Amino acid sequence: MIIDCHGHYTVAPEPHRQFREAQLKWLDNPSLPDPVPTAISDDQIRETIEPNQLRLQQERGIDLALFSPRASAMAHHLGDERTALPWARKCNDLNKRVVDLYPDNFVGVCQLPQTTTTPIANSIHELERCVNELGFVGCNLNPDPSGGHWTSPPLTDRSWYPFFEKMIELDVPAMIHVSSTCNPNFHATGAHYINADTTAFMQFIQGDLFGDFPDLRIIIPHGGGAVPYHWGRYRGLADMLKRPPLDRHVMKNVFFDTCVYHQPGIDLLFDVIDIDNLLFGSEMVGAVRGIDPQTGHYFDDTKRYVDALPISKEDRHKVFELNARRAYPLLDAALRARGL
Amino acid sequence: MIIDCHGHYTVAPEPHRQFREAQLKWLDNPSLPDPVPTAISDDQIRETIEPNQLRLQQERGIDLALFSPRASAMAHHLGDERTALPWARKCNDLNKRVVDLYPDNFVGVCQLPQTTTTPIANSIHELERCVNELGFVGCNLNPDPSGGHWTSPPLTDRSWYPFFEKMIELDVPAMIHVSSTCNPNFHATGAHYINADTTAFMQFIQGDLFGDFPDLRIIIPHGGGAVPYHWGRYRGLADMLKRPPLDRHVMKNVFFDTCVYHQPGIDLLFDVIDIDNLLFGSEMVGAVRGIDPQTGHYFDDTKRYVDALPISKEDRHKVFELNARRAYPLLDAALRARGL
Repeated sequence: MIIDCHGHYTVAPEPHRQFREAQLKWLDNPSLPDPVPTAISDDQIRETIEPNQLRLQQERGIDLALFSPRASAMAHHLGDERTALPWARKCNDLNKRVVDLYPDNFVGVCQLPQTTTTPIANSIHELERCVNELGFVGCNLNPDPSGGHWTSPPLTDRSWYPFFEKMIELDVPAMIHVSSTCNPNFHATGAHYINADTTAFMQFIQGDLFGDFPDLRIIIPHGGGAVPYHWGRYRGLADMLKRPPLDRHVMKNVFFDTCVYHQPGIDLLFDVIDIDNLLFGSEMVGAVRGIDPQTGHYFDDTKRYVDALPISKEDRHKVFELNARRAYPLLDAALRARGL
Repeated sequence: MIIDCHGHYTVAPEPHRQFREAQLKWLDNPSLPDPVPTAISDDQIRETIEPNQLRLQQERGIDLALFSPRASAMAHHLGDERTALPWARKCNDLNKRVVDLYPDNFVGVCQLPQTTTTPIANSIHELERCVNELGFVGCNLNPDPSGGHWTSPPLTDRSWYPFFEKMIELDVPAMIHVSSTCNPNFHATGAHYINADTTAFMQFIQGDLFGDFPDLRIIIPHGGGAVPYHWGRYRGLADMLKRPPLDRHVMKNVFFDTCVYHQPGIDLLFDVIDIDNLLFGSEMVGAVRGIDPQTGHYFDDTKRYVDALPISKEDRHKVFELNARRAYPLLDAALRARGL
C-alpha cells in the first residue's frame, strides 16, 4: 500500500473560495450581512477531485492520501477569532465530504482555527471535533500564524503545551505547516514554507520539547526544509549547544516527508536521514504543478524518485506505508478496521 | 592557489567587543560619556589570528581568505545611525589591520552601517571608503537589518538600487549575509542564516534584478541555503511564475559558497549547480566549531569534502581560485599586481 502523507484540497470548488472572500469583506465592513456559505454539491466535489488528485493518484500508483485543506488558504494572519473558526470548520467539513465520497483514497487531516491574537488552546476544540466526530487522523500546525512576521513564540515555548497535550491524548501527530504570507520578502511556497521547516527543526534542537513530550510526533514537510542538506551543520550545532545527538534528541519524534522535487534531493534525503524517519509525500496538486523539462515528468511526482532509489523492499515498504501507520496511529487503526 | 571566499574575524580581541558593549550602553543611556575605543595592539591581533584562522588555513592548505568582520556582531538591529557607522568603521578598520599584518593570507570584505531606519544609500560612503581607501574587494549586504522581523523590502525593490549601482561602479560583489537575530523563533546560524539565503534566492526568481543589473554579482553563502537541495522546486517555481530558466534568469549573476558541513551536502551541491557558480568557502572559525565524530575532522573543514569529489583538475581550479577571481575582480587585480 502506498500512502501519500501530504495532500491538500488545493482545487476546492469556487463557492468555497467565495465564502472566504465574503468573510474577508465582512471583516473590512462588519455592517455587511454575515457571510453565508453557498451549497456545494457532491458533483462539484467530484468535478474537482477526479481530474486532479484522484487522477494523479491513479496514474502514479498511490493508494491513499492524508488530505488536509489547502495550506496557503488557511491564512491565519487574515481575520480574527470571529472568522478563523468558521473558516477552519468549513474547510474541514468540506474535506470530510471528500473523504466520505472517496473513503479508499483520502483520510482527513485538519486545519486549525489559529490566529495571531488567540492562544493555541482555542484550537483544541476543533482538533477534538475533527478527530472524534469527523474521523481525522492528524492536523496541520502553523508555527507562524502572522504570515511571515513570526510574532508567536517558538514551538518549544510552554504556551504551545496545552495543544501538544491534547495531541498526545488523541494520539494524533501534527505536520508543521505555515500558510500564505503577508510579508513581501517571502514567497509562500518558495521561501516561507521551506524556512518554516528549517526554523522548526532548529527550535527542536535548541529546546527539549521531546524530553517533555516523549510521545509527541511531528512531521516536518518539504523534505525537512534545508535540514538534510545541512545535516552536518545541525549535528555540529547540537554538539556546540551541548544537546544530545540528534538521533536521540529530535529524531525519535520527527519525520520528514519526501516533497523534494528532483532526484539528487531525494537521494540526499535517503542518504543522510534514517529510513524510519521518512514518510512518502508529494504535496500534489500543490506548490509546483509543472512538468520538468529535464525528465518529462511532473516535478511533484515524488514516487518516481523514490522508486529510483536502490533501497531494499523492506525500506520501501517503510517509507510508503509502515512509517505513516506508525506516525498516524488512527490511520493505522482505520486501515486495520478495513482489513488492510 | 586556494581562496576561501567566506571568513569572518570571529575572534577579535576583547577591547573590540567592549567598545560595542559601551556603544549599546550609551544608546540606553545617552548621558553616559561617548564610547571611546580602547587601543588594540598588533600583538593582540596576532594572538587571536595566529592560533585560529591562520593556523587552520595552514593546516588545511588554504592560501587566502576573503575576510570580513564577524557577521553575528554586525547586529544592524541594535542601535541606530549614531552607532551603526562608528561600529562598521571600527570593524572594517580592525579587519584592515589583519590584512596589513598578513597580506598574503587575508583580503578585506566590509561590513555596512545598515540600520532599520536609514536607507541603504547611507551605506554607500562606507563601501567607497573600504574599497577605495582600505583596498577591500567586496561587502556583506544584510537583507534583513531588523534581525529576524524582515521589515525591509525585498532585495529586488528599487530602494536597494542606489547601492547596487555603486557596487557595479566599484566592481565589487556582495555576499548576502544576515546577522544575529532578536526574534526568538530563529537561531542565528541554524535558522536565520539559512533562511535568508533561501529567501534571497527566491526573491531573485520572482524579480528581474539581473535584467536591470546584468553586471551585478551576488554570493549566496552557506551553500545557497536550502536552494540546491530543492533545485527541482526552484526550477519548477521559475516555470510556474513564467520566469526564464534559472541558468539565464539568476545563475549568470549568483554564486553559492561551499559552506555545507558534510560530504553528502557537498556532493549534492556539485551535482546540481554548475561548477562556474561555486566558490570555495569554509566560514571558519565560525558557525560550527566542533569535530564531527563521524569523520574525526572539523565540521567546517570544507576543503576535505571538495578534495573528495571526483571532479577534474580544471573544475577544482575553478572552485578553489578562478571563480573567486571572476566574482571579485579587485581581488584578481590585487593578486595579479603581486604576480599571482
